[in-house]
Amino acid sequence: MVGNMLIAQSGGPSMVINQSLIGAVLAAKSSDKIVEIYGALHGIQGIFDEAFIDLRAEPEEVLLNVAQTPSSALGSVRRKPTADDCRKIFEILARRNIRYFFYIGGNDSAETANIIAEEAERQGYEMCCFHIPKTIDNDLLCNDHTPGYGSAGRFVACAVRGDDLDNRALGGVKIDVIMGRNAGFLTAAAALARQDPDDGPHLVYVPERTFSVDKFVEDVAVCMHKHGRCVVAVSEGIRGADGRAIAESFSTETDAHGNVQLTSGALGENLAAVIRERLNIKRVRADTFGFIQRCFVGIASETDAREAREVGEMAVKAATEGRYRSGTIAIKRKEQDEYGVEYVVEALANVAKHTRELPDAYLTAEGNNVTEAFLKYARPIVGELPVTARFTQLRN
Amino acid sequence: MVGNMLIAQSGGPSMVINQSLIGAVLAAKSSDKIVEIYGALHGIQGIFDEAFIDLRAEPEEVLLNVAQTPSSALGSVRRKPTADDCRKIFEILARRNIRYFFYIGGNDSAETANIIAEEAERQGYEMCCFHIPKTIDNDLLCNDHTPGYGSAGRFVACAVRGDDLDNRALGGVKIDVIMGRNAGFLTAAAALARQDPDDGPHLVYVPERTFSVDKFVEDVAVCMHKHGRCVVAVSEGIRGADGRAIAESFSTETDAHGNVQLTSGALGENLAAVIRERLNIKRVRADTFGFIQRCFVGIASETDAREAREVGEMAVKAATEGRYRSGTIAIKRKEQDEYGVEYVVEALANVAKHTRELPDAYLTAEGNNVTEAFLKYARPIVGELPVTARFTQLRN
Repeated sequence: MVGNMLIAQSGGPSMVINQSLIGAVLAAKSSDKIVEIYGALHGIQGIFDEAFIDLRAEPEEVLLNVAQTPSSALGSVRRKPTADDCRKIFEILARRNIRYFFYIGGNDSAETANIIAEEAERQGYEMCCFHIPKTIDNDLLCNDHTPGYGSAGRFVACAVRGDDLDNRALGGVKIDVIMGRNAGFLTAAAALARQDPDDGPHLVYVPERTFSVDKFVEDVAVCMHKHGRCVVAVSEGIRGADGRAIAESFSTETDAHGNVQLTSGALGENLAAVIRERLNIKRVRADTFGFIQRCFVGIASETDAREAREVGEMAVKAATEGRYRSGTIAIKRKEQDEYGVEYVVEALANVAKHTRELPDAYLTAEGNNVTEAFLKYARPIVGELPVTARFTQLRN
Repeated sequence: MVGNMLIAQSGGPSMVINQSLIGAVLAAKSSDKIVEIYGALHGIQGIFDEAFIDLRAEPEEVLLNVAQTPSSALGSVRRKPTADDCRKIFEILARRNIRYFFYIGGNDSAETANIIAEEAERQGYEMCCFHIPKTIDNDLLCNDHTPGYGSAGRFVACAVRGDDLDNRALGGVKIDVIMGRNAGFLTAAAALARQDPDDGPHLVYVPERTFSVDKFVEDVAVCMHKHGRCVVAVSEGIRGADGRAIAESFSTETDAHGNVQLTSGALGENLAAVIRERLNIKRVRADTFGFIQRCFVGIASETDAREAREVGEMAVKAATEGRYRSGTIAIKRKEQDEYGVEYVVEALANVAKHTRELPDAYLTAEGNNVTEAFLKYARPIVGELPVTARFTQLRN
């Protein structure tokens, strides 16, 4: 099938989502199946608005520089299309003879792509519809890991490495609140900061394990006794025994849909206050890493950037090859000693419906730390951290 | 004077304070005036505790790796010595024949060095006492800028560049709260994120200008009208017309001395709430950069790192040369087109007493932004940011 192509980005930005965009555009430029290459602004919203740009017209140098730029260069959106929306979409696509559609994003975006693919079939619009994976949460099914995670994990690991050194210098307890509403992968990446056995983060709490404030206070007390200081990495999404997010009990901020804003600083500050009061520790500090962990400039993991580029290329190749009407590219890790991945086409429905969590094998029995298996899993994705060192006489 | 040397670090860590430490140690190793080189742990506290390490015993490779490691490798402290403390200090120094003392830190550390130098004179202990400058706040008198500022500024600029791209993708208002209790230099560095005229940060608020919530709301409204989005950089230390920190009116956290903790997230979240309510904007977010802006791994400004190393070397050279009993190394910018600095010895008292603020010429008349003069001043210190780009068709 020869036709025009449309590509768009959706959901939360990442440091490498533009690598996927440019990977797809470059592959499309060298395909004989694709004529025009349009970019829709702000995801599917750009289709309704017919806000398109001509990606063939962009100079090669600009494409390569956009690739290494964080955030979504075409803009983003959070919107799920209805069957009626799809009718409108196909009208617009038909008018421009768009036969290839690529949507870069997380599982919500895969669902959008799936709805469009199914409606295209139902409404008889001939097109090929692919999802290209992206999420710093690392929670897409069928994937060993997802583009965006390695770079956000790198930010977290670099931040916590430095923060642990800071805590060594001034002492006390430091609590770092890291993104992750349902999956603890990003928070777990903080553990990659460690080099020596007494390095922080000393405690790691994720949404996959029930969080108890009493147990937390006890854990910190044990750590203070052992190391004289304590660095804690905690997911914004940690939940109590009742299944409710701990942050919700502290937060007063809600968004337009009534969702409590978990990225507010309330969780960290309230956990800090609990430690200050119950353990009578003078210096207790909390930081909430916030949005910069997904869009910081110049910190992307090389492996993550390369793979993000490649999933974009692979999506265009799979789509134009003619074997699939729809699908998503999934990253599988090769079963070998040296790190390596391969890309396979999965059905959209397999990725769209649910999300995955940290496997049990990656969490300690006590539920307050990650295992060596997790570190082995995450290290090649995040990459080697910059060299830091302590005086030999101060290492235990 | 031939004798042993003691060096220590004090106050808040920075990304390059270990460059100064290692610069001094390497210069001392090649000086014929200095025999033993001790490092005191946790500033002057390490003297009282006689917690010393032998810095000559550290392998050269370790020294070089420590140099590029953020935070204070010898540990830090916030403590001001009394005359009695000094007596104790001189007893300990005399016992080890320590005749050279170097203290790396901000103006509080310069004051400590000054107290020790004056008491040494008064109590008749023959020694040479130097301060080595460090502060991410950039607020030391007599200095064009201070080691630590360029790297923290680089973190802020990279974070805000990415955050501005993030805000372009999803829209709304984003508020970034940046360190700086009294001086706005670090917050002002956020403006280095800009490339295009419509890039954020669109508004910059610093402690040097009175902050009015009403004016802030108006400024954001004007920006939303102009750009359809708004990124704000604001110092944690912004003050109202009554001179009180705005953060204090929101914050409930106080430290052991009753100081309100300005790094808590309350300021940003409350400013966000004000915008959400008064301007009825759906998507308003706030991040507080917190401690990671001073200790992040792998982001140091090359210029800052080099100068930090050099002030350490210069302090040892000035001390061992015999012309000065005490002093601090100040960075002066050469009056020339190309960026360059020179180092001069200043009296401790000139740096110890007060701090400096952003000059008027660096702030716009309206008080909600920085001038081109500031950007020209700060750019070479922070260094070029990583390349990022937008599609040509999306640039105005």
